[in-house]
This record gives sequence, structure tokens and C-alpha cells, in this order.
Amino acid sequence: MIHPAFISRLRGVLPAHAVLVDREDVVPFESDGLSAYRNVPDVVVLPENEAQVVAVLQLCHAEKVAVVARGAGTGLAAGALPVDGAVLLVLAKLNRIKAIDPLARTAVVEPGVRNLAISEAAAPHNLYYAPDPSSQIACSIGGNVAENSGGVHCLKYGLTVHNILKLRAWTVDGQLLEIGSEALDAPGYDLLALLTGSEGMLAVITEITVKLLPRPERAQVVLAAFDDVAKAGAAVGNIIAAGVVPAGLEMMDRLAIQAAEAFVHAGYPDCEALLLCEIDGVNEEVSADIYTVHEVLEASGAIEIRSAESEEQRLKFWAGRKAAFPAVGRLAPDYYCMDGTIPRAQLPHVLKRIGEMSEAFGLAVANVFHAGDGNLHPLILYDANQPGALEKAETFGGKILELCVEVGGTITGEHGVGLEKIKQMCAQFATPELTRFHEVKAAFDPDKLLNPGKAVPELHRCAEWGAMHVHGGQLPHPELPRF
Amino acid sequence: MIHPAFISRLRGVLPAHAVLVDREDVVPFESDGLSAYRNVPDVVVLPENEAQVVAVLQLCHAEKVAVVARGAGTGLAAGALPVDGAVLLVLAKLNRIKAIDPLARTAVVEPGVRNLAISEAAAPHNLYYAPDPSSQIACSIGGNVAENSGGVHCLKYGLTVHNILKLRAWTVDGQLLEIGSEALDAPGYDLLALLTGSEGMLAVITEITVKLLPRPERAQVVLAAFDDVAKAGAAVGNIIAAGVVPAGLEMMDRLAIQAAEAFVHAGYPDCEALLLCEIDGVNEEVSADIYTVHEVLEASGAIEIRSAESEEQRLKFWAGRKAAFPAVGRLAPDYYCMDGTIPRAQLPHVLKRIGEMSEAFGLAVANVFHAGDGNLHPLILYDANQPGALEKAETFGGKILELCVEVGGTITGEHGVGLEKIKQMCAQFATPELTRFHEVKAAFDPDKLLNPGKAVPELHRCAEWGAMHVHGGQLPHPELPRF
Repeated sequence: MIHPAFISRLRGVLPAHAVLVDREDVVPFESDGLSAYRNVPDVVVLPENEAQVVAVLQLCHAEKVAVVARGAGTGLAAGALPVDGAVLLVLAKLNRIKAIDPLARTAVVEPGVRNLAISEAAAPHNLYYAPDPSSQIACSIGGNVAENSGGVHCLKYGLTVHNILKLRAWTVDGQLLEIGSEALDAPGYDLLALLTGSEGMLAVITEITVKLLPRPERAQVVLAAFDDVAKAGAAVGNIIAAGVVPAGLEMMDRLAIQAAEAFVHAGYPDCEALLLCEIDGVNEEVSADIYTVHEVLEASGAIEIRSAESEEQRLKFWAGRKAAFPAVGRLAPDYYCMDGTIPRAQLPHVLKRIGEMSEAFGLAVANVFHAGDGNLHPLILYDANQPGALEKAETFGGKILELCVEVGGTITGEHGVGLEKIKQMCAQFATPELTRFHEVKAAFDPDKLLNPGKAVPELHRCAEWGAMHVHGGQLPHPELPRF
Repeated sequence: MIHPAFISRLRGVLPAHAVLVDREDVVPFESDGLSAYRNVPDVVVLPENEAQVVAVLQLCHAEKVAVVARGAGTGLAAGALPVDGAVLLVLAKLNRIKAIDPLARTAVVEPGVRNLAISEAAAPHNLYYAPDPSSQIACSIGGNVAENSGGVHCLKYGLTVHNILKLRAWTVDGQLLEIGSEALDAPGYDLLALLTGSEGMLAVITEITVKLLPRPERAQVVLAAFDDVAKAGAAVGNIIAAGVVPAGLEMMDRLAIQAAEAFVHAGYPDCEALLLCEIDGVNEEVSADIYTVHEVLEASGAIEIRSAESEEQRLKFWAGRKAAFPAVGRLAPDYYCMDGTIPRAQLPHVLKRIGEMSEAFGLAVANVFHAGDGNLHPLILYDANQPGALEKAETFGGKILELCVEVGGTITGEHGVGLEKIKQMCAQFATPELTRFHEVKAAFDPDKLLNPGKAVPELHRCAEWGAMHVHGGQLPHPELPRF
């Protein structure tokens, strides 16, 4: 509980309407996009400029009050979940696009700017910002930096960290950090990469310089149907091995296809697995790559291959994929979206194992994912009104993440760790790495005021949870549960 | 001075021939590629496997003896300069290529493997490792990681950090860190990026998983001559602004052109500035981009434009650029190679300022650089036999770096800070960033045993040197010296 005297002090540095404490005002901030985790904040502040952000941080630091920074709240790992006794620092009102430089191909933006708004502002220069999380209409660039967000096109264009150049950030005690440069490299330790994906635990960002890219001359998509999920998984590896770098390479399994088809009528074929492979670039390059992709898909056993004949059809092909999450939401009262990565070669094996676990848990799974970069998004279907169902879904999800680690992958591709995956960090990392994480945290925030309890587990918690990292991929097979 | 008893202990964990102490054995290690800085090491160790590396580290940690890691010793910023009382840990004998996986497009290598050897080993799979420092025949991948090396092609393919996936590294007290993943992202703070470019100050790397790329189907180079350096500089920005991403975009000024021409007879035209623009990719894409580059060069005022008509001619065009450094070495007894970056738009202004400073210092400068990414390599000509000439060259070089900071650039593009540029770090960064650097160092090496005195200046040294960072690009103009 935050002391009323502290609320008064916040009101001393912020406009009256920027400090929310009434229950009806703060309840909307009780969760981020992972609504299974909820916690009503004591106080929400909505500063309108950098000076106000710094004033809030200094006040919190002086009184040793914790701070949870939040962007648009679309995160899927409870990274922006309010923490008891903490100020929820919402950066949505820092939403100015400060500059666009078409010659340098950069934009300078505040953290609350929506991802898509950057591309909209750059469009008159025929430029755009490449990373495109599914939530790009709503999510903010500050949150993208905090979680190192990806998207359909990150296979070719990289994650957020590959598309930003500079940050203005503030330590919790109000020191300015000017990080990165307009050049490719900067001297000193790479604090730009360190802050990117740090989930609000090291500093609070107030300005981001992003790279802009020229819009590709042409984009073309090929759809391929398979009668076997493993064949589709193998085709993914074959496309990459053929030297093609698709702009996007997405996969859906039967359950996801059926749900999407029923929802948006994309015209998908009836099959076990579907690949969508997008190529972009100059016209001739696209034609050459599309030809190669066709050949590889045929050789990989696709039962049907279609190229979009028009931009309208291309958008229709994507409509099913983009609507897959809400479409799956119609199959069951609730679903739990997981996010892990695996080496591409492990796709067939992992999909088979997820199917086996699905049977053992008695919970259906729809698979929709960024296949090209091995980033899985299994959607576990459950009904939260059934007692124990959420816990069962969470246990199942945890097992999937441990399977990802077992085959040499990771417990997150683009959603971050937040509170959701903090246990699995014990499977991902051993004590030396976790110790470095804590020490790095101390380098920025020794009092642990920023987003406490997220992203990096305390070592003793790993021991309590019985989670053990075993070096060399020798993690024991996750036990299948007996329900 | 290292105690003889400690040498005996080193001999206890290493083969006899792997511990060098005799003067004739250790003198060859007195400097790296920046031979103006020399310091004969007390002891050089050459472990042959990971276990021996760890044993050396544990011994050094137990006795609080400092350790300077060194690869092939081609670095240009004195990053591998021996430090008094430290063990020089040479990793050259860890030179196995452990695995190449053509499907995953990765290679697992030890740090002593030469950069070019990776591409040679991958060639049968039609793959290669993209970053190509000029020293790639000799330099080792471990050193590349330590300095986050670039090269001619990093404009399109990125620096070392963009081309590696995983590291096995050891803290100085002998803890294993397994960092990164085969996927695009990994959870936790980005230690992979943090270690890359950390100049041997955080951990010692014993294994690197690098990305391999498919060899481009075709590469083509265009040469353009200009009667004015500023016009050539502007052409660089125009090419990028036209949406072309060259594989390499290099610039040479009159002095460099003349030196290269006299040395390798590349057939360069007589002009004030030369651009070399390489395009690679699939055949049609290359043709389309070459056409665009031609148009932009003409519109930018090039007085002569030539495309290489054959692979032989392409290599000849590059031969002059690649030989530029040794060629300039024939113009004067000594040269000092600087390495700074600037925003591309500042190229004309900065080249003019360097020319003015050259006159004021009375030292000729040849400019050879990675123009596309704004990475300057001014070569300051001097004669070390003239009393005070080296100091004058160093002062001039320092002024160039401060100019880079002044226009929004950085003091290093790819060579690192090492000992050479440690003063300029005070101009690049303010106290809050430098403090974070020291704290991050403490997270890995609290006893400051790894490569002490390099890369990050102590705060009190910045004060002593009178170097002051002023926020917002407001650094006062560097004073021109009065000689």
C-alpha cells in the first residue's frame, strides 16, 4: 500500500489529472495482455513529458518506492503487471514523433508512440519501421524496446534491437543515459542491446531513435498445404537451406487453420498444416525467390501450392494468419498463448511432442507460429471456469517451454519473460548466468526499485521451485503429468 | 613483475612449451597491430584447450594476477597490449572448427580460428561468414568478438554482433557462461551483445557459434571519380537515400588514390575522390541496383563512372582499396590509422575540417574509409624519428575523434577503444554512462583482473585529463593547436 503522503508528493510534480488512485480509474491497469495475471495498482501516473517522468523517478528513488513502467499494455508475459506497493508509470502520453530524417533514414520518437504510427508517419518518404508485432496497431515502441519485440517480418529484418540506434534513458535515481549512436557501432559495453529486452528493470526510456527502411518494391506470398505437420516443418528448413531469406515464413496446424477459416474465410485448403511464405524486395528478386520456394515446397511434399495473384489475394492469405489468435479464441472460452523458440531442425520433433503432451493433459493445442525463425506460439485451449483448468494449462505451457530448452531453444521468442516465465528461467540458465543478470541489474538499479520480481528469478526461488538447469542440453525429459 | 612461484604454478597446469618467459620468446607479443604502443610481457601462456584456459584463469583469480587475453594480435587500438604484472593469455592454439551445420547455417568454432578460415571451411556448402575485417587472413574470430569487428561488407551484413549466435565464456574465477541461443532472441539481459566488443574485460571466450550466409549469386562493383571530396561525400548519402543497400561503399581521397595506384596499378582515374560501390545478391537485383547507383552517381556530379566488366576487373578495382593501407605506408615512414564514425550527412563537413586540421598540424592525411556507414579511417602521416612527431600525430588523431563526437558520431567504428582511445571515452560519455560501464564490469570481474586499464577510463582520469563530456552535442570546438 502506498502512503497517502507519497501520493500528495506525486501530485506536487504532476498535473492533477495525471495521478490516478480511484478504483474505477486504476482497475483498467490491473493487467497487461496476459489477463490471467491481475493486480490492481495502488496508483497510476501518466506523465506528459520527460521532465515529469524524471521527477516521478526521483521521488520514488528518494522514498524507495518501486516503479513498474508500462506502455500500451499489450504485452503477453505480465511484464507490466502492477506490483504491490509500486507506482505504475504509464508512458502512453509521451507520444510525440519528434523528427523524421529521410536522408539518415531515422525517426526520433517518444516511447508512447504506437508501432504502426511510426510507419504511417514515414510513409510520405516511402520508408517504414520494420518490426511488426501482431499488436502493432496498439502496442507502443517503448514496450517494443522493453520486450525486444519481433513479428512476422523479423526473420528478414530482425528484432527491435536490430532496428534501433539510440536511446535516452533514465536510471531510477534520475541520471540521464545517452546510449547508442547514429553509426553502426558505439564504444563501451553495448548498453543499447542491454537495455533492449530488459523489461523495464534497468532504466526508463524517454526517447528512441529508430531505423527506417525503404518500402520494398514488391511483396508476394505463397501458400502451401501439407498432409503432415512434420513435412511442413521440414519444408521450413529446406526453404532456408535453399538460400532464400523470406520476409515472413509462418505455419499453422489443422486446428488453427480451421479456426481461422471459419472466422475470416481466407480460402485456406483443408489440410494438416499450412505454410505462408512471403518474399519482398525488387521485382526480379521476388520472382526468382518465389520460383525457388515453389520448387522446394514441391520437393518437400506439399499437396497444394498457391501464389497470391493480386495484392487483394495476398492480404486475404495473411488475413487468416493475422486473425488466428482471435479465431482460436472462438474454439474455447480461454486460451493460453505460449512463446518459445527452437532450432528450425527440431520443428518436426517438437510439434510431435506437443501433440503427445496435448493428449496427456487433455487440452487441445492450436499451433500458429513464426516457423522461419523457430518461434513457436502454441495456443493451449482451456476453460477457466473449470476448477484447476488454468493451472493445468499453465503447467502444460511450462512443459512446452522446458521442451524448448531441452532441444537447444529458449523460453521466449518475442514476448519476454515478465512474471509468466520466471520459473522457466531456472531451466534456461544456470547459477553463473543468473548471477551475472542480478549483478547487471545492480549496476543500474541497486535498490531493485524498477519492476521488482520480474524477468530474472532470485537464485533461492529456483531452488524452491525445484527447477534445475543442467548444462549441455542434458535437461531430463519433462515428466508427463498424470491427471 | 610476476613472481617465479606463480610461473611454476602456471607450469603445473599447462604443458612446458605453453608457458613463455624468456625474453626472445615474449618480445614478439610486446604489441598488437598498433605498434606505437609496446610493453614486453612478463609471461605469455598458450593454452591448447578450454580446460587449460580455465585452469589459468582460476590460478590468476586465486592469486589476484591480472590477465590480458589476446587473439592473433592484429587489433589496432592496443586492446591486447600487455599490462605490467599481467599474464598474457594467447588463445591462438584454440583453433579448431568444431562443427559446420549447413541446414542451420551455423559454425561452431574456437576463438583462435582465423576469420577467413571459417568461410574457407564453409565454402563446400556454398556458405560464408560475412564480417570481413581487412585483416581477415590473419585475425581470429575471438578477437573479432572482443572488438565487435566490422569490415567492408558490414554496411549490408552487420558487425560481428549481428553475425554470432552463441558464446561459451568463462568469468575470471572460472565460472562457465553459456550465452545466446540458436534462435533470434534469448531471455534475460542481452549478455551476448554485452560481451561482444567488451575487449576482453568481462570474460574469456572459448567457443563461438557464428551465422553463415549463402554466397551471393553475383557481385558487381561500380567505381566513380569526383573532382571534389564533398561531392563524393554527398553521393554516398544519395545512394543510401535512393533505397540501395550496397554490400560495400568505400571512399578514398587524392592522397590515398595516388598511393594505391602507385602500389598496385588498379587503373584508378586521377581525381580528388573515388567511390567504390559493390552490390551483391541475385543477378536481377544486382542489375537493378547497379542501374540506380549509376543514375545517382551521375546526378551527384561524378566525372567518371566505370562498372567492372569481369570478375578480374572487380578484383582489380578492390585491389587498390585493399592495398590502401600498405600503399600509404610508402608515403611516409609512419602513419597513424584513426577510426571514428560520423552520421553520413556530416561527411562533407568532417572531411573539410580534417583537411584544415591537417594544414594546421603540418601533417598530411590520407582518407580511406567505409563511407556507407560513416566509418572514417584517416591515416595521419608522420616520421617517428622526428622528435615529437608521434605525439603530434596522436594529438591530431585525438582531435579527429573529438570532432566525430561533436557532429554526433563516435570515437570508434570497428577498431575498439583499447588503450589508444581511452581519453576520448571521456568526450564520448558523461559520468552516468561511464559509471554504468564500471558497474557492469564489476558484475563480471569485481577484482578488475581482466585487461585492466583498457576501454573504460576511471572517472578521476577524465577529470585529470581535463576531458569533459557536454550533453547535446555542445562539446566546444576542439582547439586547433599552435605549433
